[in-house]
This record gives sequence, structure tokens and C-alpha cells, in this order.
Amino acid sequence: MRAVQVVGYHEPMRLTEVPVPEASGPHDVVVKIGGAGVCRTDIHILEGQWAEKSGVTLPYTIGHENAGWVHAVGSAVTNVSEGDKVIVHPLATCGLCRACRFGDDVHCEQSLFPGIDTAGGYADYLKTSARSVVRIDDSLEPSDVAALADAGLTAYHAAAKAARRLRPGDKCVVIGAGGLGHIGIQVLKAISAAELVVLDRNPDAVELATGIGADHGVVADDTHVEQVQELTGGHGAEAVIDFVGEGGATADGVRMLRRAGDYHVVGYGENINVPTIDIISTEINFIGNLVGSYNDLCELMVLAAQGKVRLHTSKYPLERYQDALDDLDAGRIRGRAILTP
Amino acid sequence: MRAVQVVGYHEPMRLTEVPVPEASGPHDVVVKIGGAGVCRTDIHILEGQWAEKSGVTLPYTIGHENAGWVHAVGSAVTNVSEGDKVIVHPLATCGLCRACRFGDDVHCEQSLFPGIDTAGGYADYLKTSARSVVRIDDSLEPSDVAALADAGLTAYHAAAKAARRLRPGDKCVVIGAGGLGHIGIQVLKAISAAELVVLDRNPDAVELATGIGADHGVVADDTHVEQVQELTGGHGAEAVIDFVGEGGATADGVRMLRRAGDYHVVGYGENINVPTIDIISTEINFIGNLVGSYNDLCELMVLAAQGKVRLHTSKYPLERYQDALDDLDAGRIRGRAILTP
Amino acid sequence: MRAVQVVGYHEPMRLTEVPVPEASGPHDVVVKIGGAGVCRTDIHILEGQWAEKSGVTLPYTIGHENAGWVHAVGSAVTNVSEGDKVIVHPLATCGLCRACRFGDDVHCEQSLFPGIDTAGGYADYLKTSARSVVRIDDSLEPSDVAALADAGLTAYHAAAKAARRLRPGDKCVVIGAGGLGHIGIQVLKAISAAELVVLDRNPDAVELATGIGADHGVVADDTHVEQVQELTGGHGAEAVIDFVGEGGATADGVRMLRRAGDYHVVGYGENINVPTIDIISTEINFIGNLVGSYNDLCELMVLAAQGKVRLHTSKYPLERYQDALDDLDAGRIRGRAILTP
Amino acid sequence: MRAVQVVGYHEPMRLTEVPVPEASGPHDVVVKIGGAGVCRTDIHILEGQWAEKSGVTLPYTIGHENAGWVHAVGSAVTNVSEGDKVIVHPLATCGLCRACRFGDDVHCEQSLFPGIDTAGGYADYLKTSARSVVRIDDSLEPSDVAALADAGLTAYHAAAKAARRLRPGDKCVVIGAGGLGHIGIQVLKAISAAELVVLDRNPDAVELATGIGADHGVVADDTHVEQVQELTGGHGAEAVIDFVGEGGATADGVRMLRRAGDYHVVGYGENINVPTIDIISTEINFIGNLVGSYNDLCELMVLAAQGKVRLHTSKYPLERYQDALDDLDAGRIRGRAILTP
Repeated sequence: MRAVQVVGYHEPMRLTEVPVPEASGPHDVVVKIGGAGVCRTDIHILEGQWAEKSGVTLPYTIGHENAGWVHAVGSAVTNVSEGDKVIVHPLATCGLCRACRFGDDVHCEQSLFPGIDTAGGYADYLKTSARSVVRIDDSLEPSDVAALADAGLTAYHAAAKAARRLRPGDKCVVIGAGGLGHIGIQVLKAISAAELVVLDRNPDAVELATGIGADHGVVADDTHVEQVQELTGGHGAEAVIDFVGEGGATADGVRMLRRAGDYHVVGYGENINVPTIDIISTEINFIGNLVGSYNDLCELMVLAAQGKVRLHTSKYPLERYQDALDDLDAGRIRGRAILTP
Repeated sequence: MRAVQVVGYHEPMRLTEVPVPEASGPHDVVVKIGGAGVCRTDIHILEGQWAEKSGVTLPYTIGHENAGWVHAVGSAVTNVSEGDKVIVHPLATCGLCRACRFGDDVHCEQSLFPGIDTAGGYADYLKTSARSVVRIDDSLEPSDVAALADAGLTAYHAAAKAARRLRPGDKCVVIGAGGLGHIGIQVLKAISAAELVVLDRNPDAVELATGIGADHGVVADDTHVEQVQELTGGHGAEAVIDFVGEGGATADGVRMLRRAGDYHVVGYGENINVPTIDIISTEINFIGNLVGSYNDLCELMVLAAQGKVRLHTSKYPLERYQDALDDLDAGRIRGRAILTP
Repeated sequence: MRAVQVVGYHEPMRLTEVPVPEASGPHDVVVKIGGAGVCRTDIHILEGQWAEKSGVTLPYTIGHENAGWVHAVGSAVTNVSEGDKVIVHPLATCGLCRACRFGDDVHCEQSLFPGIDTAGGYADYLKTSARSVVRIDDSLEPSDVAALADAGLTAYHAAAKAARRLRPGDKCVVIGAGGLGHIGIQVLKAISAAELVVLDRNPDAVELATGIGADHGVVADDTHVEQVQELTGGHGAEAVIDFVGEGGATADGVRMLRRAGDYHVVGYGENINVPTIDIISTEINFIGNLVGSYNDLCELMVLAAQGKVRLHTSKYPLERYQDALDDLDAGRIRGRAILTP
Repeated sequence: MRAVQVVGYHEPMRLTEVPVPEASGPHDVVVKIGGAGVCRTDIHILEGQWAEKSGVTLPYTIGHENAGWVHAVGSAVTNVSEGDKVIVHPLATCGLCRACRFGDDVHCEQSLFPGIDTAGGYADYLKTSARSVVRIDDSLEPSDVAALADAGLTAYHAAAKAARRLRPGDKCVVIGAGGLGHIGIQVLKAISAAELVVLDRNPDAVELATGIGADHGVVADDTHVEQVQELTGGHGAEAVIDFVGEGGATADGVRMLRRAGDYHVVGYGENINVPTIDIISTEINFIGNLVGSYNDLCELMVLAAQGKVRLHTSKYPLERYQDALDDLDAGRIRGRAILTP
């Protein structure tokens, strides 16, 4: 089959022929790829940023946002059958450690991460685990939802966690209306009646945000903290979800938070650097957010099937992977780029 | 009546005669003081550290950890009567704002703080509100429990919040086995079966901690992070409760935290300064902790009446307030100093 | 002022002149009535069903669903001012008992219930407490929202409690699409992405339910349990909210519940009568639901102001109270009857 | 190996020779039995009460409370190794359904129940799944803890669920101080500071209960409801845990419950039969409780290793199984009977 592989850091990737993976282990599932999301992380991998952390041996196939159809299953697989339409959770987890047993499978003690530390989905077929495949509704197409497998799932996880504490009339500030923020806003509208204030440096992104349901849009400039304060009656917001995490976002964001509020860290880059006296005197919390669990992905697929979460995609045939990466790097993609068979 | 007043910053306080306060407002409660805790904050007040923040007009009476007997009640008071033995919650709250209506009264939008921004309890009598008095068990003496009103209540609040997520076998690191840590350990033992690892620079404090139930004591030195890692099977603890918050405690503390763990900030001084990438990749949380609510204080008084929380006190008659402050400043107090009538 | 009073059980009520109430107590609030909901309970009161339970002395003014404008406030009232547009929570609570201090004010140990055990709102003015008035948005009219004060609040409380455990894709069965069910459906759509199955004996009510967002409508007949089983994949629903509670609804309802599901009891009349072996072997729960708290009412008013919860009303001037009661008794009201000044 | 088998209902069981089970499936684990609890259910099986429900084919080996040492593991087992000391969760679950993925594995959609619907532990070896074995502390012996695998686990599950809502000073009534109640009391003392009122018809059981930490013991007679009311200040208890569920226990138990309280159903036999008006006017809940999850069992084993939960046992060599059953049936066992190799 075809596979796009990293053959060396700072070198172009190469489209090559490799054997189709086999469902040799009892819980193995081989998926025929219908769509593979092209993510900024893929560019970082090529730059070697993940080399040490992942410990992967080159050459290997990248691609960690995958959806398609079940092609083959191992002897002990009972939850999917050949031909099922599925999206693939990014982690292949053990199912036996305490975290897995509580449903917090992203904290599995011995998970694999296809596309990062083992062969991923820039290919015709992908090997994953029965624990990682989620059947999707007939109305959904793998190439439309593939990018929800990682970026979208992270946004869902943070938004759903925030929503659990938000009551009607509470304010929620969303910092960053890009790919993740876009999903986060749609999720919050679907499962809460919180009042959404969305902030972005890009006026187009702000406009898009209000178009999909944000109650207030604020273009980040020198006055954005004051604007948010005004929109929240001078109290600040019960929750801030920060999809940016760099360029001063966190220092500003904390100033938008109400007493006893939750600051959800999703985007990353800079440090959270806040005096403990401020944390205790206002009793605020900083809540870390990683990618969502398997059950989170099931729920996100429900929202997608209900038409409540939609993602704009630009599709490229697999062999045009380099164009997709170049367009992403140049900021020419609206929504997400997807490789198709 | 007698009252110890701040007459000027950086000047000695003065014992003087002032009128006994009256229960003129409908919800006023006047308490005859049985014990008033002497707190390091009282020293900071005299140094002027609170002058701007509190906006209090001099002279005024300090003392924010009070217990005693109800002396007089306003026309609308229904929950206590003259003669009732009570401990006094440090805040007098409105009861009408949304925070008060949810039981989060420490986030009241218009509270008073006797001893900080209005007359406190270094005196024969104190005026507070019906919303602030908690009746205590017959077996408890005001002078024994007064110091639980603020320092103890803060420790209870943080420990009880942590305990709500701790299951048998989870590890909880307590940083700092001083006044607050001491109470926190007793609370954790009373309401959870978490395994407690207690850390302090002072070997005597560590010994005391294991004497009251800590499962492991660690004297903080260059190897304490590694020791905690070893005690937690290399995973770190599900919760860290940091009663110190300065001198590098937070940087060390974060290294002791397990994936998805909660870092409870109670002590303060330095900054929480952590890369967002570390927060999201391990999905940890930082939880702010202020003083406890009115209901928290009721619960702490139950633990005190059950004999599960005990505090060592050194008592001084009111007129010897200066000796008490001097002994505190010089580190000569074991437990808490209490002024008595 | 005018007031409609019960002068004897099984006798017609009488419109009479009584003094305007005064804000004599420190927390009293006198409200000029803009709308008073006409409720089936009012008919039951006249039939003497509440005589013993309420212990009220005749004659007295009925009406427990009220909204209007603040007319006068007691000396200690800080949360509203003369002229404020308000809806009135049905209970006047103490604010001092443990339940009030936790925000569960409907379990207050010494509350009054205007319209039931003291003078209510079928009148020009009503005396209530500062703890009971919720300011409403400029866009809302008292006569439009009055009926949300009790019936609507009960539906909100149950729906919001259920929603806290419902995740996208979970099924929720609503039994009864009358007044309360109608509000419940709108609330569930506003704050959850659960799939709603609505059941009623009346085909018009079912049609109305699907018109406001129910995903599936089922007309109750001999096959309705089977229909719900089919709509829930044979598993039953994660939650059933029973707004009927009589005529066999509960026995049917339990058969629609999934393992580990929650059965919310709201309507009443018959007994819950279920073998303990069935409760434990499927691990289901029965959850009681009384009227909502003060904070619940604030949240419901947010949904009303957002246009997410709407109620159809038929308005009658106060002096036509008998027509309103007759029309209600004869089933001629669509939505709720409201008395206006 | 030896195995005690049911060869016909209402016939004596037979000790026979059968092949040692093999770890042929990838997740199979074969355990060398160190202790097998003798449970009243085993007598019911012989009476044919489970014949239809389990659908098991005779002859088969009974015994569903097992502990021992890992003898052999399947190819995909990573969590235990040969020689590990383990207790066996009563269900072998799939790990793939939504309930399993949330940690609610007792609601697994396709679980097996060794000793009930497939071969159990009255034998030298037992085949179970990697998902069912919990490693136990070195200090614990299989024959001492085996009976915690089902009876104890059920009590833990209910007590821990109740404890999550119980705060210091809340009252908890435990109905029934037999095998399950005995464990429940110890668990509640270990993880809560609720005040425990324990009720039993048997004065010896009540005395035993106060000996292990119950704050109040009440011998059930005609006045027990009134006694509990008095012990709870006339309000009733925040929680009732009913380990009996027959002989009128539930009707009495509901009368001991406070407004907004939780009635935990554990024992079974009679019906919960309560007017819906009583459920809604006091807003009480009925909470079903089945056996605990895998993670619950891990936590119970922590409490056992900490010495906080202890169970009295009477041991019989496997070949004396009939004596053990006879002694159980005749009420001659104190604590639990255990078969040992």
C-alpha cells in the first residue's frame, strides 16, 4: 500500500510502498483510511521537535487524525466488524490500568500514539486497537470528520468539562476562534446556556464565531480585557477557555476571570505565571486539558451526527500531501486539510 | 469595655476603654469574647501591610479569630439566643448575592471582615452578624477553638475539597506541617483513606505529623522530591496540598504531582510559574483555596466535638496581648496563642 | 387595595378591599402585582384539600405564582429597589438554616408560602421577602413570566438536575407534555444534547412537543413502552422525567429506564411500587423533585430572557378571576391563565 | 483437579475430578484458589432459584467469591504474572462497551459471572479474565479476603456512594448489621465523619456494630423509628443504607430519612412502595446498589490492607464443602465460611 513516511528530520517526506498491516494481535483493528487530517504537529515532527519525546525509529508513517472503514479485525474483537465506518481515537490504550478502568484512558500507563510513536494514517491502511475505533453515523463521511479525532476532540473535552460547571447566565470567555475554538464554541452552544464571549486577534475569526453562536465577539487589541470586563458586569467570567496559551494570552485571560472561576488551559506555549496570593484571594482554578477520552469522542460524533458541530475541510488526494502541508504552513487552509485515498 | 486597638502603623497597640457594641441592626449579634486567636496577620496589620487593602480608619480593634457567648441579638435574629456558646465565622456576609445563595459565602459581594476592616475581637465584646455565628458543642470551650475560626477553617476547606476526590489508596502530599498543615492532616484522616505523605523542613514538625496520623513523614532537604516519588511508586500523588507557597515549595510540589492530579494552593508568597505545555500534557489542575464557608465551619466544629481535630493553644489574659504577639514573633508559641478575658 | 380571598371552603372566592401590605420587617419587600398565575392548586385550596396541611386562617388571599414591580422595601433590603421588575420565588425562606446556607432553600426549616399559608398574589400588592425576589430582564413582562414562578420552576429544577448527568447521545424520556412538560422540554433542549422522547396521551400535546424540539413524540397507547424501547435501541433511557405520576405512568416509566438510569419523580398521585430486587439488579435510582431554589429561578429567568423558554398565556383582569378559574377547570385554557391588574 | 459441582437441582453437590482450565484466550487468567467464600446464593442455586435466570448447563462448578494466586495467563495479559496474589472480581467484563469504558463495569453489556453462569471457584483452579483480577497486598491472605469479593464489595460500593454526599455531622442510618452491614460500617468509619446509627433485630449484632465504630446502636422493636428520630434531632438522617430490604424494613426506613435524603437500597425482598406525593414533597431519593466495580474492589483491598476492614471467617478444607453449607444453613457460621485448598 501507499504510505507517506518521514525518512529524516528536515528532509521532505516520501510517498512509498509498504505492506498492508495485519490484524495479528487479538485486539488489532486495521482501518482503510477515508480521511487523514493534516495537523501542524505533522510539520513539527518533520522539524524534529518530537524526535526525542516519541523515540520513534525512522522511517515511519505519520498522521494521527484518522477515519475510514474497518478492513480486518483480530481474534478477540467484538465491537466492530469489517466494513464498519469508524473514526479512530488517537491513542491505543491498555484497558487494564486504573486510569483506563475509570474511563480516563488518555492517562493510560502504556498507550501507543499512531502517527507519533508508531505508524499513522497518511497511508491506505492503519493498524489500531479495538479500544480506539468509534462507529460513526451513516450520515457522516470519514473525510469530513477525520480532523475531529484529535483537534476537535481536544476542544470537545475542554468545552464539555467547562460546561459541567456553567449554568444559564454564567459567562464563558473563549480565547482563540481558530480550529479548536471553532469546535469549542459549537460544543458550548449545544450543551450549555452560558453566555459566550469570544476573543481573537483576527476580525474574520471573530465574525465567524458570532456567526456560529457566540453571544459577543471581541477583537483582541489593547482594550480587550476592559471590553470583557464590561461584558461581564465588571465581575469577569465564571470560565475562561484558553485555546491560545501564548503571546500574553494567559496574563490577559486571568484578568477576565471571576472570583472562584475556572481557567481552562488548552493552548500552550508560554507559562502560567501568577502570584499565589492572587490565586488564593480570589480562589480561582487552573484546569489542564489534554485530548478527550474514547467516550468523549463518541459524544462528539453524536454532536456531529446531529449537525451541531461542523468543520470546514479542504481535501487533497494522498499523493498531494506536500501541497497540503505547504498550504497549511503558508496559512492558505480554511478549516482543516484532509488527505483522501 | 476593654479593647486592644491599632492606633498607628509601626506603633505599639494600646489597651483602651470603648463602649460595648450594641445589636442595633436587625441581624446584629454581639458576642462576649471567650477566646481570640493571635495570628501572624495581626503583626502584618501593625506593619501597615493591610492598610491600603482594608481601608480601615484608625484607631480600630483587631482580632479575627473569635469565639465566646452570645451577649445580645438584633430584632430579626432567630438562629441564636443570649448565652449560646459560639464560634464566629471571620466574614459577615450579605446572604442575598448569588454566591451567598449557593453557600459560597466567602465570595459574598459585600462582606465585612471584623478585625481587618472593622472592629475585631481583641476585646471584651465583638459585634458580628447572625449569619456568622456557629453554635458549638457543650464539650468545647471558646478559648480552645477560637483559632479554628480562620487558620483552622482554611485548612479544613482545602483538605475537605481535596478529600472529595481522593479514594482509598490515593496518595496525598501535604507540604507544611505547621498550624494549618497540622489541622489539614487531622481532617484528611477523619474523612478519607488516602495515604498521607507529609513534608516539612522542620524534623520536629514531621515527627508531630506522623504522630497524628500521617502515613509517611519527609524532612525537606535536597532529596525530598525523589523521596516522594519513591513513596508514590514513581507516579506522584493524586493531590498535593501546599500550605507553604513560598521558598520554592510550588516548583517542588508540582514535581510530586501525578498525571491528572490536583495541586491545592493554600499558602502564598511566590508565583505559580509552570509551562502550559506541562499543564496540558499531564492534565494537572491548580486549585485555589480561601477560607472556608459558614457550613465548612459547622463541619469543622463537628470534627472538633468528635475529638478528631485538636489544636494546641497557649493562653494569655487580654491585657498581656503584647507578650502574646512578641512570643509569636519570636517563634516561642507552640500551636496558637489565644487571648482570654 | 383589591384582593381575591378564600372566605370559606366550597364557597366562591370574594373580591374585597384590604389594606396595602407594608414593608414593616427589615427584609420585607412589597410587590405591585403585574401578573398572578392561576394554578390547579388554587382550585384544590377552595376544595379544602390544603386546609389542614397549610393551617391558614380564613379569609385569606390566594395566588402563589407572582411577578410585578417592587413597591416598597424594608430597612435591611439591599438587593432590590423600588421600581425593579421582579418575579417572586414561591417561598419566603429564613436564610439561616443549614439548607438555606447550602442554596437548597426549598428545604428551609421555617419558610412561609404566600398564597398557601399566608396572603398571596391575587391582589394589587403582595408582601414577600428580599430573599424571594429575582430581578428580571427588561425584555420580559411580569404577566408573561408569572407562571414560571412555580410550575415552570419545578420543571426547570427537574430538567436541570437530569441534564447534569445526560451526555450527548443519552436518551431522556419525558412523560407528560402539558404545562410542566412543555417547559421541561425547552429547558432540556437549551442545556443538553440528549435525545428527547416525549410521551403523552394527547396527540396534540405530542405534536406541540416535537414542534418545540422533542426528537421523538409517542402518543401513549397500549404499545408506548415498546415504542420507547425501540427508540432507545432496546436498552431504555438514561433518564425518565415523569411529569404525570398517576394513572399507571410510573409502572410504565420504570420499564423505559436503562440500567443505572435515573427516574425523576415530578408529577404525583400514585405510588412508586417497585420490587427492591429490580432496583438493585439494574441499579436504578428514583429522584424526588420539588420546586426549584432561588438560584434555579434566576437561571430560568435567563433562559426566558434568551427566548429559549416560552409559555403561552391567557390573560384575565383581576376582577375576572372566576372566569379564569372556570376556564381552567373546564380545560379551556391553553398554556396558563394569568390575572393582571 | 478437584471441583464441587451442581449435578442436579435439589440434589447434593458432588466433589469430582475435572481438567485444570487453560488460559487459551488472550485475556484469560487461571487462578489457583486460596479461598472460596460460601454464600447463601450457593444454597439458592442448589434449590434451582437461579436455573432459569443463569441458563447454566449442569453439571457445573459453583463459587463466586474467590481469591488465590495467578497460575497461568493468556497471551495478551499484561497486568498480572504467574504467582501474583489476587482477589477475583465476580464479573468477567468485555472492556469495550460504553459502561465498561466509563468504569461502570458491572453494567457491562456482555459479562460472564463465574460460579453462576460458568465454572466458579469451589475447585482447585478457576478461569477468569485479566480484567477481573486485583493484586492484593503481601499482608493479606486469599482465604481471609475471598468473601470480600462479592458480599463485601457490594457493601463497599453502597457505603462509598453514600459517603460521597455525607459531611461531618450528617447522620447515616445503617439497617442491618449482618455480613454486609458489618463491612459497610467499617467502610463508613474509614472514609467519612458521618454519625452512624445502626439498627438490627439482633442485640448481639447491634453490640458488635458499636464495637466496630457505630456511634449509636438501636435494637429494632416497635419503637425503633422513634428512637432514630430522636437520635437525629427529629429531622431524620441524611442517608439510610438498607442492607435488609424485607420484613417491613423499607417502610420503616423511609420514615427515618431527612428531607432531601438518600435511601440506599442494597438488601432486597419486598417492594419499595411509597406515595409519589411523599417523594416529591420531601424530595427524597431511592438509590439502587449492585455489586461494586473493579476499581471499587481495588479500593476495598486498600482498606483491608490498612486494617480498616476486617471480616471474621470460618475455614473448611474444600472436601468439607457440605459441612460449610450445612453450617451456613443452620446459622452456625459467625462471619463467613471459606473453603480452602
